[in-house]
Amino acid sequence: MPDILIIGGVAAGLSAASRARRLAPAARITVLERGPEAGYSACGLPYFLAGRVQRLEALRAHPPEFFREQRQLQLLTGHQAMEIEPGRRRVRARGPQGDAWFAYDRLVIATGARQRWQPTPGLRNVFSANTWEQVRELDAALRAGGLRRVAVVGGGYIGLETATALAERGLDVVLVHAHADLLRGFEPELTAGLAGRLAAAGIELHLATRVLGLEGAQGGRVLGLETASGAIACDAVVNCGGLRPESRLAAAAGCVLGGNGAVAVDERQQTSVAGILAAGDCAETRHRVTGAAVWAPLGAAANKQGRVAGENAAGCGPGRPARFPGVRATLAVPLAGQEYGRTGLSLEQARAAGFDAAALTVEAASRAGYMQPEAISCRLVYQPSTGRALGVHFAGAPGTLAGRLDTAAAVLTAGLRLEEIEMLDCAYSPALAPLYEPLLIAAHNARRA
Amino acid sequence: MPDILIIGGVAAGLSAASRARRLAPAARITVLERGPEAGYSACGLPYFLAGRVQRLEALRAHPPEFFREQRQLQLLTGHQAMEIEPGRRRVRARGPQGDAWFAYDRLVIATGARQRWQPTPGLRNVFSANTWEQVRELDAALRAGGLRRVAVVGGGYIGLETATALAERGLDVVLVHAHADLLRGFEPELTAGLAGRLAAAGIELHLATRVLGLEGAQGGRVLGLETASGAIACDAVVNCGGLRPESRLAAAAGCVLGGNGAVAVDERQQTSVAGILAAGDCAETRHRVTGAAVWAPLGAAANKQGRVAGENAAGCGPGRPARFPGVRATLAVPLAGQEYGRTGLSLEQARAAGFDAAALTVEAASRAGYMQPEAISCRLVYQPSTGRALGVHFAGAPGTLAGRLDTAAAVLTAGLRLEEIEMLDCAYSPALAPLYEPLLIAAHNARRA
Repeated sequence: MPDILIIGGVAAGLSAASRARRLAPAARITVLERGPEAGYSACGLPYFLAGRVQRLEALRAHPPEFFREQRQLQLLTGHQAMEIEPGRRRVRARGPQGDAWFAYDRLVIATGARQRWQPTPGLRNVFSANTWEQVRELDAALRAGGLRRVAVVGGGYIGLETATALAERGLDVVLVHAHADLLRGFEPELTAGLAGRLAAAGIELHLATRVLGLEGAQGGRVLGLETASGAIACDAVVNCGGLRPESRLAAAAGCVLGGNGAVAVDERQQTSVAGILAAGDCAETRHRVTGAAVWAPLGAAANKQGRVAGENAAGCGPGRPARFPGVRATLAVPLAGQEYGRTGLSLEQARAAGFDAAALTVEAASRAGYMQPEAISCRLVYQPSTGRALGVHFAGAPGTLAGRLDTAAAVLTAGLRLEEIEMLDCAYSPALAPLYEPLLIAAHNARRA
Repeated sequence: MPDILIIGGVAAGLSAASRARRLAPAARITVLERGPEAGYSACGLPYFLAGRVQRLEALRAHPPEFFREQRQLQLLTGHQAMEIEPGRRRVRARGPQGDAWFAYDRLVIATGARQRWQPTPGLRNVFSANTWEQVRELDAALRAGGLRRVAVVGGGYIGLETATALAERGLDVVLVHAHADLLRGFEPELTAGLAGRLAAAGIELHLATRVLGLEGAQGGRVLGLETASGAIACDAVVNCGGLRPESRLAAAAGCVLGGNGAVAVDERQQTSVAGILAAGDCAETRHRVTGAAVWAPLGAAANKQGRVAGENAAGCGPGRPARFPGVRATLAVPLAGQEYGRTGLSLEQARAAGFDAAALTVEAASRAGYMQPEAISCRLVYQPSTGRALGVHFAGAPGTLAGRLDTAAAVLTAGLRLEEIEMLDCAYSPALAPLYEPLLIAAHNARRA
């Protein structure tokens, strides 16, 4: 039985540990988590901030005792991995009682992501919202009172989720985004109405506004943001700026990184260094539509990659070695009363990848016309020369997107052509689904185009 | 330009006519519909009976004038086709002004289905609920008052939709079903709770009860049902007994029928007789999982088959000749506060088709655990020897099934294996969808089994 060591105890790390435990009941499995908490849903943090989830503990998949006692994992929170010695197969970690070395036969690196922009240190009321402890700190400051006008920096989906959550909580929210378009990577045609929705939700928008620095008062409180177009006053700042892979530890151990800075891995999640695997937001993956190595930090993929890494670390999965086949970057996010979803490529991404791509949008219905349907916009990106679908994008009312997006992801996974998509036998029942699903109408129109 | 004649003006027939018109703007296109109304949603009839749709006219895709004026169709309601002369390429139809012959170059037969059981003629308050005029008649009788206790005969999905609709309308409903299990063809494990749900909705159930005949009073009113286990009193009967394909006209014209009594067609919806196509509930289709010819009368397939028949009747579709690839018999139905859905084969069907099939059920969640998820049962039928998925079945709370079932249909269409299904990158967002979709959990468990 191998000794398995895992750096990182959130999505990928604990998935790896749990899967390894199931396959190798007698292995020694140790998880080093630098934060105070392991095995929680990072994607759920905005729901806690919004007040829709009452206790942070509700975001735990299981309490720590479950992992320690039921899963027999040596789960060490508050332990920051400092150094990997691949030659001696050991890791130095700094814990509450100082530094210690941990030996391994197989190491899984699941160090996640870090933020590109690091605000001025030392100023009070400057927060992030990516981890349990960051959100607990932000929540405590908000509960303490005195913070009324909060600037959220970053208009990607994490920034937008955080901004709408804080607005829902009753704060005055200012959203500052470096680019003119929100939710980049989604099809601009479908997100065109988003700025208006956010404004209607009471959020003050500053688009195409790059943050140059922070303004602070004597005593160390933040007073506002310095931007190229002037100062924006606020009581607090939440930094939701761009993420990059936290791959520094792996790189120092000799693991090859991809051009995007993430740890390069094969389908088995193995890095270039013998005995070291990587999974989750620190690692690259394969984009199934382009075939290219990409960095696509998403929760569901992180969990699956962790599972594959855990299986291969244990070295005894059922049948063939476990493989993570890659992603289509499927992503759904509800924002200000609308759901936005995407899978595969945007038109811009498809053209950048060299496809002779086209796109069209259909406005369709979630149910039969006489059953008070919700409106759904579906944008299909495809290759006219081959009839291949490259990407599917949706915007729709709450409750309309989840399964539809998965259907599109399955269609892309299978490489179905337009004429096959058009004939897909989707469920039809007047109160549940329309005679022709939006995706089928889009495929039909694309075939005629 | 060919003269195109279509027998039947509901789902398949009007789809064929509309598609032919689009491709052949100058063709003469005639539709013979025996009923008083064309181009309505037969699947919506229960919602009108329930009172959720206020006017029968709301079930029209378009009013008749639209088809006549905008689509330039010669749409003749009240015209019953009596005879086809394939040698002279003409059809005799009986209309309000007597019999007339209609010439064709291409004929599309879309005569739909008829009911196997025909109740005693001449008795009053005996109804069916399959067509516009049948439902209008039933609704008028119910509005006239005096009918309190209504017996619905048939526990398939049409009978169950009708029974729950009438219960929702406030009537005392008795459901009489010849078999012990409701909703046959669905996985019994998932429909086990259905009888209890119907009873809780106030429906009196008589299962395993075969109707032998009707009891009538002097004056011709129905008084009850005669069954093998005694009489069941009622004020009215709604016959939702089993359907069979209405293929008599096609058979008389020399069209080969399949073993199930439906008109045999190829992928282009062409029958064995030159110049004659067939589509919708009167025709066979290919089951994509077994490869066998089946009779699977479902609205969405009828519309698509009609489209294909119309395209081939016009003889000038885009690219290759239009083909209908077959079905996986995807079906969803909401009943008594629960949604039931299936695609592909049940375990019993899979074994009957010669597969070494197994099945397992998972109880899973519609969203993240901390977002008040709904429960979803997912039963996966698969072939352990090949890792092939053969059928997917769901039962879940309202709003949980439609897209999930489509994802399963796409997975079956693509022939994805368990290990691919397990790694499908479905959308994950706490309020929208769980980290692991029920289908992915089922595939994971099946691979481990």
